[in-house]
Amino acid sequence: MIGTRRTTQSADLTDVRMTNLAVVLRHVRTHAPCSRADIAASTGLNKATVSSLVSDLLERHLLRETGMAENRIGRPAAMLTLQGRPYAAVGLEIAADQVAAVAVDLTGERLLSWRRAFPGLDAAPGRAEAAVAALAGRVVTKLTGQGHRILGLTVAAPGLVSADGRVRFAPHLGWSDLDLRAALLKTLRHPEYDVVVDNDANLAALAEYRSGVRAGTPDLVCLIGGVGVGAGIIADGRLVRGARGFAGQIGHLQLDPAGPFCRCGRRGCLEAFAGLPALVRATLFDTDEPITDYAPEIERIIALAGSGSPVVRAALAEAGRRLGQAVSVLADLVDPQVVVLGGAFAPLSAWLLPAAEAAARSRALTAGETAVEIVVSTLEPGSAAAGGAALALDRLENGHLPASS
Amino acid sequence: MIGTRRTTQSADLTDVRMTNLAVVLRHVRTHAPCSRADIAASTGLNKATVSSLVSDLLERHLLRETGMAENRIGRPAAMLTLQGRPYAAVGLEIAADQVAAVAVDLTGERLLSWRRAFPGLDAAPGRAEAAVAALAGRVVTKLTGQGHRILGLTVAAPGLVSADGRVRFAPHLGWSDLDLRAALLKTLRHPEYDVVVDNDANLAALAEYRSGVRAGTPDLVCLIGGVGVGAGIIADGRLVRGARGFAGQIGHLQLDPAGPFCRCGRRGCLEAFAGLPALVRATLFDTDEPITDYAPEIERIIALAGSGSPVVRAALAEAGRRLGQAVSVLADLVDPQVVVLGGAFAPLSAWLLPAAEAAARSRALTAGETAVEIVVSTLEPGSAAAGGAALALDRLENGHLPASS
Repeated sequence: MIGTRRTTQSADLTDVRMTNLAVVLRHVRTHAPCSRADIAASTGLNKATVSSLVSDLLERHLLRETGMAENRIGRPAAMLTLQGRPYAAVGLEIAADQVAAVAVDLTGERLLSWRRAFPGLDAAPGRAEAAVAALAGRVVTKLTGQGHRILGLTVAAPGLVSADGRVRFAPHLGWSDLDLRAALLKTLRHPEYDVVVDNDANLAALAEYRSGVRAGTPDLVCLIGGVGVGAGIIADGRLVRGARGFAGQIGHLQLDPAGPFCRCGRRGCLEAFAGLPALVRATLFDTDEPITDYAPEIERIIALAGSGSPVVRAALAEAGRRLGQAVSVLADLVDPQVVVLGGAFAPLSAWLLPAAEAAARSRALTAGETAVEIVVSTLEPGSAAAGGAALALDRLENGHLPASS
Repeated sequence: MIGTRRTTQSADLTDVRMTNLAVVLRHVRTHAPCSRADIAASTGLNKATVSSLVSDLLERHLLRETGMAENRIGRPAAMLTLQGRPYAAVGLEIAADQVAAVAVDLTGERLLSWRRAFPGLDAAPGRAEAAVAALAGRVVTKLTGQGHRILGLTVAAPGLVSADGRVRFAPHLGWSDLDLRAALLKTLRHPEYDVVVDNDANLAALAEYRSGVRAGTPDLVCLIGGVGVGAGIIADGRLVRGARGFAGQIGHLQLDPAGPFCRCGRRGCLEAFAGLPALVRATLFDTDEPITDYAPEIERIIALAGSGSPVVRAALAEAGRRLGQAVSVLADLVDPQVVVLGGAFAPLSAWLLPAAEAAARSRALTAGETAVEIVVSTLEPGSAAAGGAALALDRLENGHLPASS
């Protein structure tokens, strides 16, 4: 760990205790079953402190005792492990045409996976966020009815989301400066668990980092195809959020000032080459009316490409080449080890990937170095919802503990 | 702290002890003078552990006792503070035409600041790195002769530097896969302190983060003008290095595929618009022979722009506009709060900055949001050398302690 850190090793004792609670929690997750003495020996915290921290975590139902260890030197000791079931971490993902919801327990086991049609752009103002909030409410009711306690709820939105949970700009939903978090808090009646709104590509990247095809790769970028194109950037194991939470906005990276016009008013943006509307225009031609559900269109593109249509294959290759160009910009600026193609790019990857790889390779600064690797996500669609649930677990392990009950 | 971390809260007890030594060191730096009991109370470490850690840091001459605190409740306690003078952290910076060296003590006070002409591209193979290594040796000899102990030595190189200290590619020096760290270790006779080679823009960004005009801004990018153009990216208080250490290579960001030819073989790269050779070509015209020292050329450009030359001002405005375009890409991808213009951009900023600001503003994705702020570095030239010295201090505070003597 070379870089500098804001060294607010705060003198605030509540913070120190929260940090130490998180240290104990992480230790038990990675070393369970283990005793209080094991924890003290490994962390350097004194035994009285560890006992007090463990009591606290037992009270919060985050840990449980599994019985005594007999075959050890010295007195038998109570062994500790994570308490899985009582808690549920919830993630929702909003897309232009649907909302997905996922819940997992403390150990990451799936408790629930829902998918609902979503009015998106077609809804009257206020309808869409009410639909999201209502679904969140139903998920929470279902889980609490099953005896789970909610650890945290995260909603993934396709757009610029500020740290306070306002969706500042989500053009594909027609949202602008929408306080989605406030709407959720109201519907959920100001719960004591954390309610977070975050960018969908950020959360998809967290899902990839936690359980994707290259899980644990510390420098990883997730490139999500949809109506827009978004990136989630993980650098040295941490999500790059930026000052306002807007990092990873790659959709309007200008690849060619003489390229096709983009919705944003400029020309030649990545989205204008590789967003779903551009892909549909370049492959299917006949779609003049506005599309509200892209799944059938993607199926048609796959069928045409699969049957060998030269026009469709050439269009996908061109989109892939532009993706590779964007990957080379990411490679130069943040140097990930791997770029994971997700969202609509995954089902189209057979035709996008070869061109993307060739373009990224041809643009690598140093011929001798390995170019960045491009892989295809293996997570099911709606991975940002799973990433939202993962975020609630991450926050727990970084000291955002639920109140003791 | 929301993002995930590689949670290798290692069970390795040496690591835990090093981490705890660093915790104590940071605590004393921010709270000195303080007692062992103060440290135990604030960190949650037990008193015996704190005593042992403090003894260790006293033995390593990193801390010293300043006497007893009398006006406190309970027994008088020995007060601890950082031991400044015994140690020296050294940074060197290699540019195309000179090498700078800086040394500071543990408290950051300047001990030495040297500058030497450097053969750069003109030197016979092997000469240039020998010159750097020799200067490093003279700096170390000088400091140790004054009774300082070297804490660490960092060399900033303008190019792609891998984590093991090899300069993989530094076109402006004509270096390719040069094991600079090995050359330094040989000249310095394999010292026990850390010898690190890093990218110059990375170290300039560290210097800005530690002592620049926006010191402490957690999301900060430093954009360095020279023969090439480089970026150092700090996200949430940590340098973004990337998988291979190559992050921040912005010089060949393609702004216009129909733009001027670039040394890299492509067209319209940022360097082809705003690197020093491009600036000199666009403003002075008459420089057909290769330039080995850009300082006089920069002076001429400043004089012409100052006297109102429309051609020179227009050329600088165009370079500024291209810089602003690159800033908008950085804003979209990593969302810094501030971009600091350094290197040759600083003395030319009166003419570059207005155009850069206008271009970045016009390209901001959301009109309602504050665009990224662009400021001019106030650090003296050779800030990457100071950043190198800062890196040695940072490494110390992250657990890279010198051996006890």
